[in-house]
Amino acid sequence: MLYVIGLGLSDEKDITVRGLEAVQSCERVYLEAYTSILMVDSNKLVEYYGKQVIVADREMVESESDTILADAQNINVAFLVVGDPYGATTHTDLVIRARELDIPVQVIHNASIMNAIGACGLQLYNFGQTISIVFFTDTWRPDSFYDRIKENRDLGLHTLCLLDIKVKEQSIENLARGRKIYEPPRYMTVNQAVEQLLEVEDKRGEKAYTSETLAIGCARVGTAEQRLISGTLQQLLDADFGGPLHSLVLVGKRMHELEAEFVKEFAVDRANFEEIVKKDYSH
Amino acid sequence: MLYVIGLGLSDEKDITVRGLEAVQSCERVYLEAYTSILMVDSNKLVEYYGKQVIVADREMVESESDTILADAQNINVAFLVVGDPYGATTHTDLVIRARELDIPVQVIHNASIMNAIGACGLQLYNFGQTISIVFFTDTWRPDSFYDRIKENRDLGLHTLCLLDIKVKEQSIENLARGRKIYEPPRYMTVNQAVEQLLEVEDKRGEKAYTSETLAIGCARVGTAEQRLISGTLQQLLDADFGGPLHSLVLVGKRMHELEAEFVKEFAVDRANFEEIVKKDYSH
Repeated sequence: MLYVIGLGLSDEKDITVRGLEAVQSCERVYLEAYTSILMVDSNKLVEYYGKQVIVADREMVESESDTILADAQNINVAFLVVGDPYGATTHTDLVIRARELDIPVQVIHNASIMNAIGACGLQLYNFGQTISIVFFTDTWRPDSFYDRIKENRDLGLHTLCLLDIKVKEQSIENLARGRKIYEPPRYMTVNQAVEQLLEVEDKRGEKAYTSETLAIGCARVGTAEQRLISGTLQQLLDADFGGPLHSLVLVGKRMHELEAEFVKEFAVDRANFEEIVKKDYSH
Repeated sequence: MLYVIGLGLSDEKDITVRGLEAVQSCERVYLEAYTSILMVDSNKLVEYYGKQVIVADREMVESESDTILADAQNINVAFLVVGDPYGATTHTDLVIRARELDIPVQVIHNASIMNAIGACGLQLYNFGQTISIVFFTDTWRPDSFYDRIKENRDLGLHTLCLLDIKVKEQSIENLARGRKIYEPPRYMTVNQAVEQLLEVEDKRGEKAYTSETLAIGCARVGTAEQRLISGTLQQLLDADFGGPLHSLVLVGKRMHELEAEFVKEFAVDRANFEEIVKKDYSH
């Protein structure tokens, strides 16, 4: 059996009881460690499970899936994923490959940012499509998310923006020389995301949003250290969210009164928030 | 402390380890039992937690929130919610009320249908807004979901349809006579949902979808008895999904090749599925 097990949002205790029992029945345990990251070291998992944990990077999952699945017709193998297993395409590939090899698969779900973002006070059914924002570089500043945001906002819907994570990055020099030396991990902050968003609006100019658009910056959602700050994009540009992980929600114009009431509680400036709601967000 | 704890999708073991520890620290434990239902009896929870569990119906949560919150400044109180806590507005009300009473609140997230639906093979970021379909009656056939579906489908996005649950319903006679006698719970099936959808398309005629639109019927998502069947709405009209809970996904035209490959596996008729994908779903 291949168990694909969601670990939830924060640390070793966010696994479900069912998930923990499954891990304990497994002979090999892999931890997927590149589409998202857990807020604890993998050694903590080793200690908690009383089992060895093999950290699987993108390379391994994409090119060595048969190693991961070896003998899983006869023994139990766990593939652990931060959040919920179906957050990223790669895990789907692994499931398809297991099916081809006649390996039974059981998925054990958990919270992910895709549903836990409800913590920001906006109703999940009022969200449109989710977008991703990647770190801009000097030569690569992809802005296809702009069209997606515009589609959502034209309908009055909220947009969840997932922010880039860079794990196991190589510098251009190390890459060129084939040296497997990796840079420290980088996590996009709400501030950086807002900066990029405003840059793209400046360039595209179709008013998908403006510096006066209301948004909610979210840090460490679902943990005891969760921090939520709402305000205009301009206001969030230099709000302090602390450590990773961050995400950002652009508020849609269909925001309901009850949603506004909840979100106002953690506004940078409540009076200003109410004013903008009255001006731009009233049906 | 008020703990608002998600129970996940299926039974007593879908709670997280963190959630279980929180429950065990509580002096009173409430189970919200009207926006969704767990697939096990609440007695099973009593046994599993070794604690009394007070079943809270809508009436109680809406009108007796101060009873639920009584003394939670000094003791721990758990409010259990099937799925994730932020699925329904009512829980937001409870959190707002707790804040007013200066009661610290901790939310412990879990999987809900809003993210576990990724199990159907469609990518979560390709979903538009989520809609709800309620049981039609002779005199009440609300179809506002039609406009929402059309908005999603015009953009090529998938639509998750949540299907009605009726718990603690009273017959009109019992209601009129003030008798607190309740009908057995009812759960909308995929078949009923499809029938209502096609009726509304017949009436509205704006081609938000047709009987040839591809969809995925999903039953008991995230449990060992999960059943997924894909096909045209016409084909799903009499497919057998077994017991509750059911939900339905309308496939958007932006469906990616990899998504189609996964979904085809559980098609009523694979050849027909491929044909329709080629004809209607190719970019």
